[in-house]
Amino acid sequence: MITSRLLDEQLGSRVLLKAEGFQRAGAFKFRGAYNALSSLSPSARSRGVCAVSSGNHAQGVALAASMWNTRAAILMPRDAPAGKRAAAEGYGAEVITFDRYRDDREQLVERLAAERHLELVHPYDDYRVMAGAGTTALELLEDVGELELLIVPVGGGGLIAGSATAAKALAPGLRVIGVEPQASDDVTRSKASGRRERVQVGQTIADGQQLSTPGELTWPIIAALVDEVVTVSDQEIVAAMRLLFERCKLIAEPSGACALAALLGGKVSAPGQRVGVVLSGANVDAARFAALVSER
Amino acid sequence: MITSRLLDEQLGSRVLLKAEGFQRAGAFKFRGAYNALSSLSPSARSRGVCAVSSGNHAQGVALAASMWNTRAAILMPRDAPAGKRAAAEGYGAEVITFDRYRDDREQLVERLAAERHLELVHPYDDYRVMAGAGTTALELLEDVGELELLIVPVGGGGLIAGSATAAKALAPGLRVIGVEPQASDDVTRSKASGRRERVQVGQTIADGQQLSTPGELTWPIIAALVDEVVTVSDQEIVAAMRLLFERCKLIAEPSGACALAALLGGKVSAPGQRVGVVLSGANVDAARFAALVSER
Repeated sequence: MITSRLLDEQLGSRVLLKAEGFQRAGAFKFRGAYNALSSLSPSARSRGVCAVSSGNHAQGVALAASMWNTRAAILMPRDAPAGKRAAAEGYGAEVITFDRYRDDREQLVERLAAERHLELVHPYDDYRVMAGAGTTALELLEDVGELELLIVPVGGGGLIAGSATAAKALAPGLRVIGVEPQASDDVTRSKASGRRERVQVGQTIADGQQLSTPGELTWPIIAALVDEVVTVSDQEIVAAMRLLFERCKLIAEPSGACALAALLGGKVSAPGQRVGVVLSGANVDAARFAALVSER
Repeated sequence: MITSRLLDEQLGSRVLLKAEGFQRAGAFKFRGAYNALSSLSPSARSRGVCAVSSGNHAQGVALAASMWNTRAAILMPRDAPAGKRAAAEGYGAEVITFDRYRDDREQLVERLAAERHLELVHPYDDYRVMAGAGTTALELLEDVGELELLIVPVGGGGLIAGSATAAKALAPGLRVIGVEPQASDDVTRSKASGRRERVQVGQTIADGQQLSTPGELTWPIIAALVDEVVTVSDQEIVAAMRLLFERCKLIAEPSGACALAALLGGKVSAPGQRVGVVLSGANVDAARFAALVSER
């Protein structure tokens, strides 16, 4: 846990930061992937796993598979950043590319799983993945004790579904708030209407959260256990990234900074409260980080 | 302690990073300042302290004084970055400015100490400050156990004098290597000749290490206990900053990255060894960091 007196003074809350950038492979995603691999039968695990992802899930699955000494096949869009591909291959995964505009990625990965008898590891719509991701909140609560509010980024919903499940079991009175980018406010809208809404995803720097609808399995958990979901702008995210860098000496990728952005931007207020904030990952290359924080 | 398997694979050593950016006030300097304040008699401490610094020492002294509920007067050049001044004032220090080109800073701070009956806290040439700084190596060794090599940045020499004292007492066979920027190679030259050499300091991004000669009190300790001092270029420092950012998710200011730069740049080699690397601080604003890592 990382804390900062200056941050606390500025916000008027006691802020406890869970920095998942220091998690293996640089983001919380490894937790879910590793738990999914660990949950497989030995024979299923020995056949290997597959996933479709151009981001942190790819690296999480690749690393978890290498730790279990089994194969991973990762479908990635042909135009994925070279660094992301190299990272997955560095962990020993086989990377198979597809055309992000012409191919149906869900169909491709299901065919791959069937043809090669691989276990498909979904990035969020999988109870094993949610449970693994939820250890983020579990550890946070074990480390800091009592807490009044927990703020968690929301993309597909695996992190917040798992975290809310752990948090509400341990501390039923704890408020859990999700944060997503304004450009992809599907979960906010779904919470308002009470059913899974689908939105047109706009442009946002928060590339880990560009989803058009909540997960089929994550949504009922979010509906039941998450108290509120709020949105933040890209500008608010950049301000949080800059503050984390300068005050806390922490790196967050844009999606990783959105929970703190909600607090800084006044979207969530918790005067005098102890607030757990999940910084979900730190996989942003130095040049992109530099470009983002240089803009005012 | 922060470790990275990717870093270890790249270097062929087991690298154990001591990230002083997470120290209070963002750099190791707080350790020496706090120890100096703690060593004063109650009556001396209640009169207050003074220092001359535009950098991390100013913040360390200001914070230590505020923790001891006493006053600190800090002399800073008039053109010091506004953020540095605000940080010292934020800790409750009085900032007094001087003209870096026309005024004699040593004379000014001594007069200030005499006139106001303040205890002068030197940034390195003070055994209390060296001893405080040396807790960096003490903690590192306590955390990691056996070590074959310890690499430490060198500016005035307080950090390395204290660290080498602690390290050689605990592990006499441990090699201790200092690193300074090429543009300010006074300690390297002094080690070569066996006496305190004075150099013309050139331009370097490593603003914490722009000193023309080793300290009067730090030098004999460096001469006796430090095995070797090597230099690194600004380019090597930037490469280390970028790698720390991307691989380890750690922020280092230029001086803070120089010990790792020596290892990455092949100035120091330790194949198969366990190597402690002190990252001495992380006080670099986001815009400056962005500008540094964007240049190739």
